[in-house]
Amino acid sequence: MVAFDFYPRTRVVFGPGSITRAGQIARETGFRRTLVVADPGIRAAGHVTRVLDALTAENIDTFPFDGFGVNPDSAMVDAGVAFARPLAVDSMIAVGGGSSIDCAKGINFVLRNGGAIGDYRGYGKAVTPLLPMIGIPTTAGTGSEAQSYAVIADAQTRMKMACGDASAAIRVAILDPDLTITAPRHISAMAGYDAIAHAVESAVTVKRTPLSDTFSHQAWNLLSEAFERVLLHPTDAGPRSAMLLGAHFAGMAIEQSMLGAAHACANPLTARFNVAHGLALAIVLPHVVRFNAPAARDRYAALLGAPRRRARDEDPAETLARRLEDFAVAGHLSITLSDAGVSEEAIPELADLAAQQWTGGFNPRPFDAKGAEEIYRAAM
Amino acid sequence: MVAFDFYPRTRVVFGPGSITRAGQIARETGFRRTLVVADPGIRAAGHVTRVLDALTAENIDTFPFDGFGVNPDSAMVDAGVAFARPLAVDSMIAVGGGSSIDCAKGINFVLRNGGAIGDYRGYGKAVTPLLPMIGIPTTAGTGSEAQSYAVIADAQTRMKMACGDASAAIRVAILDPDLTITAPRHISAMAGYDAIAHAVESAVTVKRTPLSDTFSHQAWNLLSEAFERVLLHPTDAGPRSAMLLGAHFAGMAIEQSMLGAAHACANPLTARFNVAHGLALAIVLPHVVRFNAPAARDRYAALLGAPRRRARDEDPAETLARRLEDFAVAGHLSITLSDAGVSEEAIPELADLAAQQWTGGFNPRPFDAKGAEEIYRAAM
Repeated sequence: MVAFDFYPRTRVVFGPGSITRAGQIARETGFRRTLVVADPGIRAAGHVTRVLDALTAENIDTFPFDGFGVNPDSAMVDAGVAFARPLAVDSMIAVGGGSSIDCAKGINFVLRNGGAIGDYRGYGKAVTPLLPMIGIPTTAGTGSEAQSYAVIADAQTRMKMACGDASAAIRVAILDPDLTITAPRHISAMAGYDAIAHAVESAVTVKRTPLSDTFSHQAWNLLSEAFERVLLHPTDAGPRSAMLLGAHFAGMAIEQSMLGAAHACANPLTARFNVAHGLALAIVLPHVVRFNAPAARDRYAALLGAPRRRARDEDPAETLARRLEDFAVAGHLSITLSDAGVSEEAIPELADLAAQQWTGGFNPRPFDAKGAEEIYRAAM
Repeated sequence: MVAFDFYPRTRVVFGPGSITRAGQIARETGFRRTLVVADPGIRAAGHVTRVLDALTAENIDTFPFDGFGVNPDSAMVDAGVAFARPLAVDSMIAVGGGSSIDCAKGINFVLRNGGAIGDYRGYGKAVTPLLPMIGIPTTAGTGSEAQSYAVIADAQTRMKMACGDASAAIRVAILDPDLTITAPRHISAMAGYDAIAHAVESAVTVKRTPLSDTFSHQAWNLLSEAFERVLLHPTDAGPRSAMLLGAHFAGMAIEQSMLGAAHACANPLTARFNVAHGLALAIVLPHVVRFNAPAARDRYAALLGAPRRRARDEDPAETLARRLEDFAVAGHLSITLSDAGVSEEAIPELADLAAQQWTGGFNPRPFDAKGAEEIYRAAM
């Protein structure tokens, strides 16, 4: 069994209605002046007002910031830093999808340590520890609230940078499934597919440990049971709870295990062709599973557990790939690379970009531009 | 899905040879003057010397204490406090089985807060936070290194008291499977059976959560695969690793889920008839599973996972009970209550004591003296 060093830093408060505890938890955690990072869509849904009211009731001063969008970039981080600098905040709360949580972490790096977010690419480059943060996800997706990384795009190149630090871990994650019910169907589908991709990739990387396996497998069990049920019955509390907790567990798995070729192939599609992250993953993930089969077949079989839909002699990698294609169909995410506006001619450049992605290095089957090209061609 | 609030406090360093990192980890954690709690048997095995040398190499002053035995009691805690008080230690390391780790926690409560260990029965009664502790288990058993409770016997009545506090959680658990290889066969069997009982009980209590389920199921998977292999091949690293990690995960499950009727029935056997804890559990656990079947059959089926040894129409509770009896046979722990020297006449008093045990209140089927009597009679 592989050795590991697991330093948990995030308290997890899970349950319907748990957002009502945000004020009390912030006070317990020592918050007095708090930057509240939430994008305009989340503010419109009313969730932010509830958080602000809960903080105000505990005499905590709040400063909402919403100058960013999906795939937050270095310019949005700079805008947040300029907004926050005169306020002398001692803490942050992020409310929203991965964008809000990643943006808060990015602002926190630069606010506390100066320079630009690109300076913190990699791990452990913050000299001054970041301000304590509470994360309140409103989608079941990135699981960023379980991780010590901020994923921020370069405003020029649009390529994603992963900036990690022990102090970038969220201090308290409040997982309230009620908040995810108002998300539009396509957001639930794309975020949910992202979480599923996290479970599938983290279950097979070269860095996985017995602990990350525990979380990736439990994430898969929860997410694969609930994904289609959430789309059919969006207001049911049970599947929404399973998705939110599954996405968090998948984030915990990534924290040890990292990701693989699907994220390496998806990121250039977002950077170059503006394909939404969840959609990009749905395009490439089944083909990555087939690509990885020679190296990861047994791990995929373990992830699927007991035979259910598959015949005894069926290849577990193929079973999993088809299951992932079924999920894409259910989520209206089932398109090809050409549907997404990518032509054959673009593949070599995309493959070069994919080969440069950090996550590709953790893929169970060695992954390079040639492998990326094979995956992209299969996805045409 | 049940709400939960999970506040992880223990860093886990797992892997063969990880004990060599004890000095560096102690230094990182701020240790300067350290009480090292380890019973004489563990000192004889040489593990303590390695820890002391590693600490000395980091210029940490060490003060070994070994004045206690299995099932540490309030008098042993007092002896440890008397030993430690003049030393002005700032930290503790426990090396050994659950006895060492529980004894260190007990000493810590009283050293920091005065009075007697019985004053801290329950949860959260320490006014002054306990000194930081590192736990290094040498058996795969209690998982005490994953929990914020000390289990200490009253020196007069021999009944166990559970004393919990957030600050009684071990700061760093060093899980080195190499240390468990020197344990005698019967110790490995009894400790391992204890860990299995933790997984089985925590998987069905009324307090279980989706998070404790994750750990209890993974603990069961690891422990049930490895238990017999460790007894057959005691020096194999794989099964030893699985047992040590499984015991830790079972401890993490208990931290949220607590335990049930098997521990409630086992404790009076230890207190009144001096039956070793693991042996007492082996006597009662299969009968507790049968007793709980009406309330917990589905949960036992989920724990067993896909049908393996059982026919499709077999009762999963009966399958599990027989599997637990097989484990007892493999561990040479398969005896009846009468073999253990308990006569029919003793049952009413034992049942009264069992009904007073805290853990019985978390059992999935309501548990009282009548239920305890039924379980004891089945175990005769």
